[in-house]
Amino acid sequence: MQAIILSIGDELVLGQTVDTNSAWISQQLARIGCAVLAHVTVPDDQREIERAIADASARCDWLIVSGGLGPTEDDLTRQALGHVLGEPLELREDWLTELEKFFRSRGREMPASNRIQAMIPRGAMPIHNHAGTALGIDARLPRSSPPGGFCRIFVVPGVPKEMKGMCEAHVFPAMRSAGGGAVILSRTLHTFGLGESHLAEKLGTLMRRDRNPSVGTTVSGGIVSLRVNARFNSAEEASQQLERTSRECYDALGQLIFGEDGQTLQQVVGDLLKGKSTVTTAESCTGGLLAKMLTDIPGSSSYFSSGWVTYANEAKQKLLGVSDEILQQYGAVSEPVVNAMARNARLRAGATYALAISGIAGPEGGTADKPVGTTWIALATPEAIDARRSVFAGDREMVRDRAAKMALALLRFKLLGMQTPF
Amino acid sequence: MQAIILSIGDELVLGQTVDTNSAWISQQLARIGCAVLAHVTVPDDQREIERAIADASARCDWLIVSGGLGPTEDDLTRQALGHVLGEPLELREDWLTELEKFFRSRGREMPASNRIQAMIPRGAMPIHNHAGTALGIDARLPRSSPPGGFCRIFVVPGVPKEMKGMCEAHVFPAMRSAGGGAVILSRTLHTFGLGESHLAEKLGTLMRRDRNPSVGTTVSGGIVSLRVNARFNSAEEASQQLERTSRECYDALGQLIFGEDGQTLQQVVGDLLKGKSTVTTAESCTGGLLAKMLTDIPGSSSYFSSGWVTYANEAKQKLLGVSDEILQQYGAVSEPVVNAMARNARLRAGATYALAISGIAGPEGGTADKPVGTTWIALATPEAIDARRSVFAGDREMVRDRAAKMALALLRFKLLGMQTPF
Repeated sequence: MQAIILSIGDELVLGQTVDTNSAWISQQLARIGCAVLAHVTVPDDQREIERAIADASARCDWLIVSGGLGPTEDDLTRQALGHVLGEPLELREDWLTELEKFFRSRGREMPASNRIQAMIPRGAMPIHNHAGTALGIDARLPRSSPPGGFCRIFVVPGVPKEMKGMCEAHVFPAMRSAGGGAVILSRTLHTFGLGESHLAEKLGTLMRRDRNPSVGTTVSGGIVSLRVNARFNSAEEASQQLERTSRECYDALGQLIFGEDGQTLQQVVGDLLKGKSTVTTAESCTGGLLAKMLTDIPGSSSYFSSGWVTYANEAKQKLLGVSDEILQQYGAVSEPVVNAMARNARLRAGATYALAISGIAGPEGGTADKPVGTTWIALATPEAIDARRSVFAGDREMVRDRAAKMALALLRFKLLGMQTPF
Repeated sequence: MQAIILSIGDELVLGQTVDTNSAWISQQLARIGCAVLAHVTVPDDQREIERAIADASARCDWLIVSGGLGPTEDDLTRQALGHVLGEPLELREDWLTELEKFFRSRGREMPASNRIQAMIPRGAMPIHNHAGTALGIDARLPRSSPPGGFCRIFVVPGVPKEMKGMCEAHVFPAMRSAGGGAVILSRTLHTFGLGESHLAEKLGTLMRRDRNPSVGTTVSGGIVSLRVNARFNSAEEASQQLERTSRECYDALGQLIFGEDGQTLQQVVGDLLKGKSTVTTAESCTGGLLAKMLTDIPGSSSYFSSGWVTYANEAKQKLLGVSDEILQQYGAVSEPVVNAMARNARLRAGATYALAISGIAGPEGGTADKPVGTTWIALATPEAIDARRSVFAGDREMVRDRAAKMALALLRFKLLGMQTPF
């Protein structure tokens, strides 16, 4: 079972939109044991779409096409598919009725342009859309080999919500019921704080290319992740092997691994806090990002009640009682200032812990002593205050992101009762 | 001049990482008038990489390959390229010396595995890496037609910073100096608040598919953007036509268009505030996201000094003096509560404006009366307080994001002295 994922859209090949659909579809396909041969993206050009559909369908068993099903004139996927299949587009009256109902329920007439969204190539099956107006398409294109073989082509909208709804309700169930092939199971183990080659050294032969399960590293947003891929004939064997290799990674890295798969630092920290303690935040350069990360998690109200964004020196004084003297003497980006921010925030919020961040996010404001990226982070606990200076590489967004993540990482090790191992 | 962008990596086809490189490269290529025929992504599999390089280079003048240049065993791009070119890999002694120096300067021996990063196919040109350890590759692969023709292949690392550095210093200048071909100039006009088909109706024939410049719509993060693409033989004509069509879009949509290209709502709002007035924030469900957005902008300290995250009711009382009575009577997600949050935040921060947000971000907490997504946003000015109720669709992240953007949009119209037009 091999699949190709084809994304359609000028905005994608022009780089105006980042294609997140392909990554999501790939993740889901890995779970059902379907190997993805390639992602391909082409513009809203009927000939290019036709060519891409024809090329891809000759090489794979499943082709998932997203995008180009909108009501406007630059939406050409259904026409291109019809052409490749050699079938005219036909109106699905039942869906047209649904569409008219949908618009009426919002007190509007259906614009004439939406009619095309109820059309699919003759002989294809419609895929119901629970979140939008375009009908999806499920079609078969015969292949020369094996005899009687075909590529099954699913066309879904590019809007992530509609795409996901159709994939979950129709595409993946259809693929699962077809079954067969090797099973690939994957797990991703996330770390923060140490570089890729440093981790690779600790992992040693676990990273050998010919190993199965394989272990590879990727970096995204400062998070270095190990991806463990196990490819075996049975789900049971894949699962056991995946488990074994994952354990070996934990043996090599210990608590440097903070989470798995979809887990984030904020989630892991939240789980450690929940029902035991609370945290507050006092942010300067991160401007609310750390509080935002903590409250990314549903239910975070049980451990996060309030936080301060004290971006200006004056706000650090007025809202958090940082003294003018230490601001003058040491500057806002200094150990005494973050210590005072953390200490006072903890007391004022009545929280168990407080994290304070003050840094130079750039692009301006750096000096020889304190270059752009210099960040002080303090963690106040009932017993003490620790502060740490980091110099983060990258642009303003990266510095702010890494500073907030470092604060979460420091809190995590504190909650684990460990020294920070980097 | 046509290009294909090829990305290499298991993590990409497995969906563990979203490919942002291709979008960035595409954006830059559009500026130098190079049409992107396709994006292609394949796994860390030498045969698949070879096949993709061979296929793509037969169809385009420029092939930009990113990824698979790391020091580990799953990095196979340089081997694959060597194989397609029919050339062995050769060590570039000068780069090896650089690498050894780099590691020594950090007080470490160079790991043996990094040696491969100084190797490139014989006859190819190295591309210097200012941000990392892998050498890039600049090679030519002959094509059957036209006679003497070739595809120029650039290989750069997948790490965005290294990729960007090499593209800007070597790849794009090389492509620009080759010149020729039609010029594509693009502009994106951003709106927030009205849906895609609503905008399409206002734009009318501007969105006709056969128009040049063309106007298309895309939606990302609640922002509906019009992209205007002008494809002409001269840069001058493309520029004039782009200008004219853009003006027609403004005529149709007026201030619904808040910005262009890389501009964000927070930037536009910042520009309106700068030197004139200040703003503070009081956030419940967005948990700091609005303050974070405002401080995304370098120099935002001139109009943003402080903000509060009052996630719990108790924090709304303690930090912002919201009375227990109205919290009890109306609930945290209500007009009286956001009004009190905004009024008091404005006074306590001494700011011209205050934005307050309280909503149900979900997934829990919704009721029949106040479903998930229900959000009250208040804007306090020196004269008055306006509040507005919205029900945002989507998951927790979307609700929080749209709520923060709506707050910025409301402030923008206030600063423009206009009624909100939706």
